[in-house]
Amino acid sequence: MAAPLLHPDRLFPADPGVRALARELFAQVEALPILSPHGHCDPAWFAADAPFPDPASLIVTPDHYVLRLLVSQGVSLESLGVAPRDGGPFETDPRAIWRRFAEGYRLFAGTPSRLWLDFVFAEVFGLQEPLGPATADAHYDAISEALMRPEFRPRALYERFGVEALATTEGALDPLDHHRAVAASGWGGRIVPTFRPDGALDPDQEDFRDQLAGLCEATGEDALSWPGYLAALRARRAHFIAHGARASDHGPPSAASLDLSEPQAEALFARVARGAPESGDAEAFRAHMLVRMAEMSVEDGLVMQLHAGALRNHDPATLARFGRDKGADMPQAVDFVRGLAPLLHRFGHAEGFTLIAFTLDETTYSRELAPLAGFYPALKLGAPWWFHDSPQGMRRFREQATETAGFFNTVGFTDDTRAFLSIPARHDLARRMDCAFLARLAAEHRLRREEAADIARALAYDLAKAAYRL
Amino acid sequence: MAAPLLHPDRLFPADPGVRALARELFAQVEALPILSPHGHCDPAWFAADAPFPDPASLIVTPDHYVLRLLVSQGVSLESLGVAPRDGGPFETDPRAIWRRFAEGYRLFAGTPSRLWLDFVFAEVFGLQEPLGPATADAHYDAISEALMRPEFRPRALYERFGVEALATTEGALDPLDHHRAVAASGWGGRIVPTFRPDGALDPDQEDFRDQLAGLCEATGEDALSWPGYLAALRARRAHFIAHGARASDHGPPSAASLDLSEPQAEALFARVARGAPESGDAEAFRAHMLVRMAEMSVEDGLVMQLHAGALRNHDPATLARFGRDKGADMPQAVDFVRGLAPLLHRFGHAEGFTLIAFTLDETTYSRELAPLAGFYPALKLGAPWWFHDSPQGMRRFREQATETAGFFNTVGFTDDTRAFLSIPARHDLARRMDCAFLARLAAEHRLRREEAADIARALAYDLAKAAYRL
Amino acid sequence: MAAPLLHPDRLFPADPGVRALARELFAQVEALPILSPHGHCDPAWFAADAPFPDPASLIVTPDHYVLRLLVSQGVSLESLGVAPRDGGPFETDPRAIWRRFAEGYRLFAGTPSRLWLDFVFAEVFGLQEPLGPATADAHYDAISEALMRPEFRPRALYERFGVEALATTEGALDPLDHHRAVAASGWGGRIVPTFRPDGALDPDQEDFRDQLAGLCEATGEDALSWPGYLAALRARRAHFIAHGARASDHGPPSAASLDLSEPQAEALFARVARGAPESGDAEAFRAHMLVRMAEMSVEDGLVMQLHAGALRNHDPATLARFGRDKGADMPQAVDFVRGLAPLLHRFGHAEGFTLIAFTLDETTYSRELAPLAGFYPALKLGAPWWFHDSPQGMRRFREQATETAGFFNTVGFTDDTRAFLSIPARHDLARRMDCAFLARLAAEHRLRREEAADIARALAYDLAKAAYRL
Repeated sequence: MAAPLLHPDRLFPADPGVRALARELFAQVEALPILSPHGHCDPAWFAADAPFPDPASLIVTPDHYVLRLLVSQGVSLESLGVAPRDGGPFETDPRAIWRRFAEGYRLFAGTPSRLWLDFVFAEVFGLQEPLGPATADAHYDAISEALMRPEFRPRALYERFGVEALATTEGALDPLDHHRAVAASGWGGRIVPTFRPDGALDPDQEDFRDQLAGLCEATGEDALSWPGYLAALRARRAHFIAHGARASDHGPPSAASLDLSEPQAEALFARVARGAPESGDAEAFRAHMLVRMAEMSVEDGLVMQLHAGALRNHDPATLARFGRDKGADMPQAVDFVRGLAPLLHRFGHAEGFTLIAFTLDETTYSRELAPLAGFYPALKLGAPWWFHDSPQGMRRFREQATETAGFFNTVGFTDDTRAFLSIPARHDLARRMDCAFLARLAAEHRLRREEAADIARALAYDLAKAAYRL
Repeated sequence: MAAPLLHPDRLFPADPGVRALARELFAQVEALPILSPHGHCDPAWFAADAPFPDPASLIVTPDHYVLRLLVSQGVSLESLGVAPRDGGPFETDPRAIWRRFAEGYRLFAGTPSRLWLDFVFAEVFGLQEPLGPATADAHYDAISEALMRPEFRPRALYERFGVEALATTEGALDPLDHHRAVAASGWGGRIVPTFRPDGALDPDQEDFRDQLAGLCEATGEDALSWPGYLAALRARRAHFIAHGARASDHGPPSAASLDLSEPQAEALFARVARGAPESGDAEAFRAHMLVRMAEMSVEDGLVMQLHAGALRNHDPATLARFGRDKGADMPQAVDFVRGLAPLLHRFGHAEGFTLIAFTLDETTYSRELAPLAGFYPALKLGAPWWFHDSPQGMRRFREQATETAGFFNTVGFTDDTRAFLSIPARHDLARRMDCAFLARLAAEHRLRREEAADIARALAYDLAKAAYRL
Repeated sequence: MAAPLLHPDRLFPADPGVRALARELFAQVEALPILSPHGHCDPAWFAADAPFPDPASLIVTPDHYVLRLLVSQGVSLESLGVAPRDGGPFETDPRAIWRRFAEGYRLFAGTPSRLWLDFVFAEVFGLQEPLGPATADAHYDAISEALMRPEFRPRALYERFGVEALATTEGALDPLDHHRAVAASGWGGRIVPTFRPDGALDPDQEDFRDQLAGLCEATGEDALSWPGYLAALRARRAHFIAHGARASDHGPPSAASLDLSEPQAEALFARVARGAPESGDAEAFRAHMLVRMAEMSVEDGLVMQLHAGALRNHDPATLARFGRDKGADMPQAVDFVRGLAPLLHRFGHAEGFTLIAFTLDETTYSRELAPLAGFYPALKLGAPWWFHDSPQGMRRFREQATETAGFFNTVGFTDDTRAFLSIPARHDLARRMDCAFLARLAAEHRLRREEAADIARALAYDLAKAAYRL
């Protein structure tokens, strides 16, 4: 008989004694509500509560993890349904896309995408056969049919998944209409926005000056002056807070922060705002604005998330042809110890301030992030991010961060996904890996079993609730 | 029944077969004498042999591992008994400090401090309940009472712990009176000094010129001239050697070394000695003096220890308010391959010269330190340092260094602590982790069992004895 | 009774359940033919098929892994039979060299050399006692005697080892006479050359201009002009391809690539070709030629291998006295994400182009190489290289690369050795470690067992065959 698609002991250590402990710990956290304090779901789903489209448009075409691995083996983005910007041809038959995906599904062996997708197939859609060329059509049909049923609409799934709160991510100018619509609808779900002002803080982004114009329009402030710009950002933060936001998010290429005097900052802003930056100005401005964002967080209480170190759009051809977020972003080395120093010197001990750092450079776990978070009260460690949101990635994070930062300077799991259906899969995986880690500590008598149980619950629920004030 | 505070199988792998092997190996090294060739105990303890003070002053306030993690969760240094430099108020009631510590003790779950402290409570003081708010007072009372008994005085503990030799660490100007007193006392313990001249070698330290003045005074040399400065350093090394020193220790922020001609060196010294360094002079001078220290080690036989890569006093506010060594030092990336090249080119094959390198940047284990130590006869690898002196840190060190450097280019364990009571705990932990590592190699038939036993003994005792010539 | 020198379960995980799975997987790949698509064997062995010399000249003196670890413990290269360039004395008695090696054999505990050598002793020569001072002479005699027998000649061993194809490595000017001789001999073995033009691409190498002269002579092109230089390189590539080459190989100190306009490139070449480079020219030229080599691979189909990041000849004294490849090369940090960007922008999606990247900087597995290979169709990940060609090195590679790049963006194992006798040992080790890794994934239900079996075969054979077009 074939193995089930989802084994009940999946991801638990093979040693029978440790596995039994892991099972015991997991049983206590498996059913806890899901907090999703950082992610990229579309709030329109929950405002409109319309059925999701076909399987390919839902599961294949928007998932850059899936696209990139298929591309790496020579499958074109066009053939996966991604529309070229120049209006060129691309595959529009979702079943054809799905078959290509099923054909390439074996490539995902050993990756977290495979574990998430199998969970979605088995748990969300009740499928029991592995996806592959032979089962492609049956899976497609089953999923298509399910998506037309009311219990697969966004709100119903939100409830079925046991989500307690879900944060989306929006640019500084977003009117947050969908969030307002959800709130006004009387539905019990909690969909909160996140303030992600990168576009308005980064002179290197091509639409930076449009963002400044947008800030003027949205707030009535003169965002082309330095005081007006700061006032406009404060106003947008207040707008987000009024719509339920608990956090901001920042995605600079480095972790550099920079403290400047008011005249220095004003002069720097004047140069970048009129589109005449000198060499180094863009980096300096981003670095200074990180300090300003921290300052505003101290004032208004938004938790500050820092996702530093992604080199966006490594492949100019893919960017030109298909746009951003198609799987061509790459990690780079980050220096948190020197980079964050100016910010932490100002606000590392600030009352009520929380800065949650994420990294794509795993060498910083033990060398930089855990030592910093194990000292500065403001700094907490975010969950393993992106490429490292994976079983081994999670194990490395716990093994490399815990001994210096402990468990209580981390903030639980964030799924960070736009793949709504995979959210329970991701939390399931994270909870299993944390229980596996704790079970090993308990089995090696480095932790008492009752402590392990308390910490398992903290990692699955309590820490996120506290850190993000949900 | 509750688990004992210290399980006899703690830190051994959970697999029954491997665990049995680990137990067997550990049984053969558990009772070996302790060599502590690098650490920060106060030699006055052994000179005076006075009782230790209260539990908080002994265990909480001086331990920067403990302070930093409590600080990271918002506990103030003042409330933990650390006196501000400006004479401001701070907690002076040791029981109140202890209660705060007990309250925060759960934060240490998963950290080595927790394992060391539980060992101290259980093994040194015979306590069997976990520390926490409910047991805080009972623990305090038991420890207080014990500390008043003769068998808890420094010399008695030294003997009870089975210490064979213990090195302390002193600045270049230290008169070594306590070491002289210990030697003159007729007591059988061996407390040796270590020559740590950072203050006299680093123009960036604020008291650098005072150190030069002190060198003049202590040696009668004209340490404001380049030849006199070198002569004075030689004289101080001789003074340390006469008091039993086996090693020097150096803690520069990077691993840079620099070979200079005599005129270049003299000109550089002239600038830094008169307090008029040019840009880059301080780094160049530190780098050059590393080569000079190696040269003197070749002459006088002091083993040279290099603790490179700590960025001291990351938080200016903590430094200003409380001074150094309060938990705010941070690691940074280090380049040993290029940094040590000039030094190794001169002395990497020098007869009788030993350079022991420690790192806070674990990425250098497999990329730099093991390849260098697996070639240059002079270079040996120190034990995992500071943040990495921990179970997973030790495992990473062995897993990443052994395949390229072997076991015999490492030098055994150094506890590197000022927490005297924790010394047996730290050696116990290190011996267990090494036996666990060796047991796995033996279980996977990568090492014969009799070899594993020989190596376990080497790691616990022989290698340190040989490397430090104890 | 003593443990056998080679335990049948060596390198498999200790957990009985996982071990059983690993055994099962290994049984299916153990006997697959060996593909050795990258290495440094001497093609003359297979052309002449003469007996190998004495044990020391075969096993000790040419192996820089062996030399370096003995040197690190104070054994001189002269005493191991390495001839100084100045004609000074060195040990010429192979038995004396062998005894020194046997004396130091304990130093190799925990290193892969030990595992490879034990395999050679046990499997190739049928020895059952561990090497050591007591068995040195017996081993020496047994090996000496065996080497005189016909079944220990190179071709016989090639067949006995089950090698299907073996690539050697040659400079751009190599006439490939031995390869021609092998092909003409009618023997069934497949010995193919690899085009390694570093000498002709690197202005920092002392014989760079001699290489240019050699290119003129070998091809009739005017290799002192830019067009002639490119034409000469194309001609040499064609020569290699005509003799069976499937791949080129490139070993620059960094991974920098640089795209230049034709006039820029021509001007740069002119400066380096006349021996008058400006500062930065050598690095720029190497970086540009990497792009040119990729361009030629797109044209002629040679698979492009990149071994980036070795700092050659770290110890000038060893270089001066004994020459290159004596164990004094050191790894350094490499930036693949920025370094390879220009090359990948040009050819990352080029039809039929394969670039196989190897690294000595393990931090790049999860941060750079797996993300790049998980996107660009041209880029594949080579096996763990050099210091990391070891059990833990392989485990780290799989654990850090697989979750982002999958298995199918890797290319199987390359032994990369000049130690011909150790080739089956190295493949045995790699196959065992891969099966151990897959067994753990299967035991933790992260992979189905039938998938694990398919992937084990791919890693042992299929992927190398496909990637190198063998």
